[in-house]
Amino acid sequence: MNLTILFGGSSHEHEISIVSAITLKKVLKKSTLQFIFVDAQRDFYLIDPAKMTSKHFSSGEYKKSKKLTLKKGGFHTEGMLGSKPVTTDAVLNLIHGRDGEDGKIAGMLDFYHVPFIGPRLEAAALSYSKLATKFLAASLGVETLPYEVLRRDDARKITLPYPVIIKPVHLGSSIGVSIVREPSELDYALDVAFEFDAEVLIEPFIEGIDEYNQAGAYTGEWELSIIEAPHKEEFLDFDKKYMDFSRDAQVLAAEIDDALADAIRETFKRIYSPLFEGSLIRCDFFVKDGTVYLNEINPIPGSMANYLFEDFEGTIERLSRQLPVESNIVIDYQYIHSIQSAKGKA
Amino acid sequence: MNLTILFGGSSHEHEISIVSAITLKKVLKKSTLQFIFVDAQRDFYLIDPAKMTSKHFSSGEYKKSKKLTLKKGGFHTEGMLGSKPVTTDAVLNLIHGRDGEDGKIAGMLDFYHVPFIGPRLEAAALSYSKLATKFLAASLGVETLPYEVLRRDDARKITLPYPVIIKPVHLGSSIGVSIVREPSELDYALDVAFEFDAEVLIEPFIEGIDEYNQAGAYTGEWELSIIEAPHKEEFLDFDKKYMDFSRDAQVLAAEIDDALADAIRETFKRIYSPLFEGSLIRCDFFVKDGTVYLNEINPIPGSMANYLFEDFEGTIERLSRQLPVESNIVIDYQYIHSIQSAKGKA
Repeated sequence: MNLTILFGGSSHEHEISIVSAITLKKVLKKSTLQFIFVDAQRDFYLIDPAKMTSKHFSSGEYKKSKKLTLKKGGFHTEGMLGSKPVTTDAVLNLIHGRDGEDGKIAGMLDFYHVPFIGPRLEAAALSYSKLATKFLAASLGVETLPYEVLRRDDARKITLPYPVIIKPVHLGSSIGVSIVREPSELDYALDVAFEFDAEVLIEPFIEGIDEYNQAGAYTGEWELSIIEAPHKEEFLDFDKKYMDFSRDAQVLAAEIDDALADAIRETFKRIYSPLFEGSLIRCDFFVKDGTVYLNEINPIPGSMANYLFEDFEGTIERLSRQLPVESNIVIDYQYIHSIQSAKGKA
Repeated sequence: MNLTILFGGSSHEHEISIVSAITLKKVLKKSTLQFIFVDAQRDFYLIDPAKMTSKHFSSGEYKKSKKLTLKKGGFHTEGMLGSKPVTTDAVLNLIHGRDGEDGKIAGMLDFYHVPFIGPRLEAAALSYSKLATKFLAASLGVETLPYEVLRRDDARKITLPYPVIIKPVHLGSSIGVSIVREPSELDYALDVAFEFDAEVLIEPFIEGIDEYNQAGAYTGEWELSIIEAPHKEEFLDFDKKYMDFSRDAQVLAAEIDDALADAIRETFKRIYSPLFEGSLIRCDFFVKDGTVYLNEINPIPGSMANYLFEDFEGTIERLSRQLPVESNIVIDYQYIHSIQSAKGKA
């Protein structure tokens, strides 16, 4: 498999995406990998795999690499002798946050008929908004925690009992998120969140609630990962987040009974199909009194959640051969022809 | 104002978009217009304004025009002497249906920092799905008709009383839409709709319900069009649809009382702001027993609903000076630097 890892992006998670890409280089041992970096200015660069170190990017040295353009048929180098395509079996969209998870890259790759692993535009747009995720879950009969939404100009009143957690509607990572334990803390937390977004989501903060993560993909058959009970921390600081995105060894499955495991797996499948076809996603769930609640959909999880799979490289390879293709629309100018001939007769 | 009209697209409404573009050429008299055509193969062409006739496209003659590439800084011609940008104050996204209204073009233009009139990616993705539109309306406290959704594998049972109207969830025009008057007609109508989409929306079909269309934009202040009571036809056949997209003379306002007009205008504003900032949209409403129901959001209405505005060209010009700009994300490699220095110490 010749796979092109697309990473970076104009995103708050730009650096995390670099860490993810370096991790995938370690994990995808049998594949021929190419790396395309999207820098902060949204220029595309073809990166020598031998230079996939974080320093190569933080030092700006990457700018000596070949620049690419994205056009019909994929990424191209441009030279004196014209344009040359960077050939690949598939692109893996590994841009976390803006550009990657908001649907832009998906739309661009689909527009130019480039096969890619990652959420399609609609799946990205819906999961990038925590509010749209709530709607999506409701339409699928999947439970989520109760919530309220505040916009910038709204009265700063909430009806949920404290403590609550406050999140900007559109940001992926923990940026702008606060736990608010009493009314006196609300104003400041809202100020912080509104720095990042015009809409803010408010949910109950349930101390000690059970959390489980399930990743998977549909590759012609279901390939679900083990279920992990992630380490509980109120927040991941950057060192821990870095650790999290650079995980490359398989972890142990959570010790839960079959009924709960089945419920988690079935909920995952309901969310995944058909919207997320073509991608490998991770869903983070809460469980309370036996009920499974969707917390978050990560349509491009850190290091693609490789550490949850027994045969991660096999899953990615099979997925790359099972990518959805946009339907072909035939344009035959039948209407314009009929108008023209009607005019001719008149 | 130097405005670039982007039209065509790999869309069922490709031909309609050509008609819309020709109409805008008639209507935008004071502006300097450029025309960029997206053909069925998604190649971009710079079209001589003198050649903006439907035949130029249906005959394939447009292929003699200059081909363009879209990259950082906008559309470019490529020649022996390198790449030259097509300069413009703003692009007006006039691609109806797929590519234009599903968010792809919005994502691409935002990615490359090209100022444009049209729905942003999230607004497009939400309004392109009739189901997401329902959720959006519900979250804004805007009424819609009751509905059911069926997927391909679902049992073909509905609970809404007949007659119902059946629509593919994702198509803009009347393609795949049927009115079903009794249970015996349901199966065939679903077959037709599932030809075009994996999800189908079912709503009551209310004969003779009052319909009103409201268009508008926010240009620093609200610029709302007159409210039109559109001609009622169960379906627009192509000739009528052609007429509809080529309308270029202002129509008369519906004769409704102030309370209803206010209710329609307030509902429009609630839907528009902030999601649709940067675009001129038309909302189609039903009114029953004094309640306003959202039927459809047209984020790129036919011929931009020019015929509803008193000073359409002025509105477009003011809008082009009030376009939202993506927030700038500073990437300073602070995290990677801190990891590197931590490693250095270890």
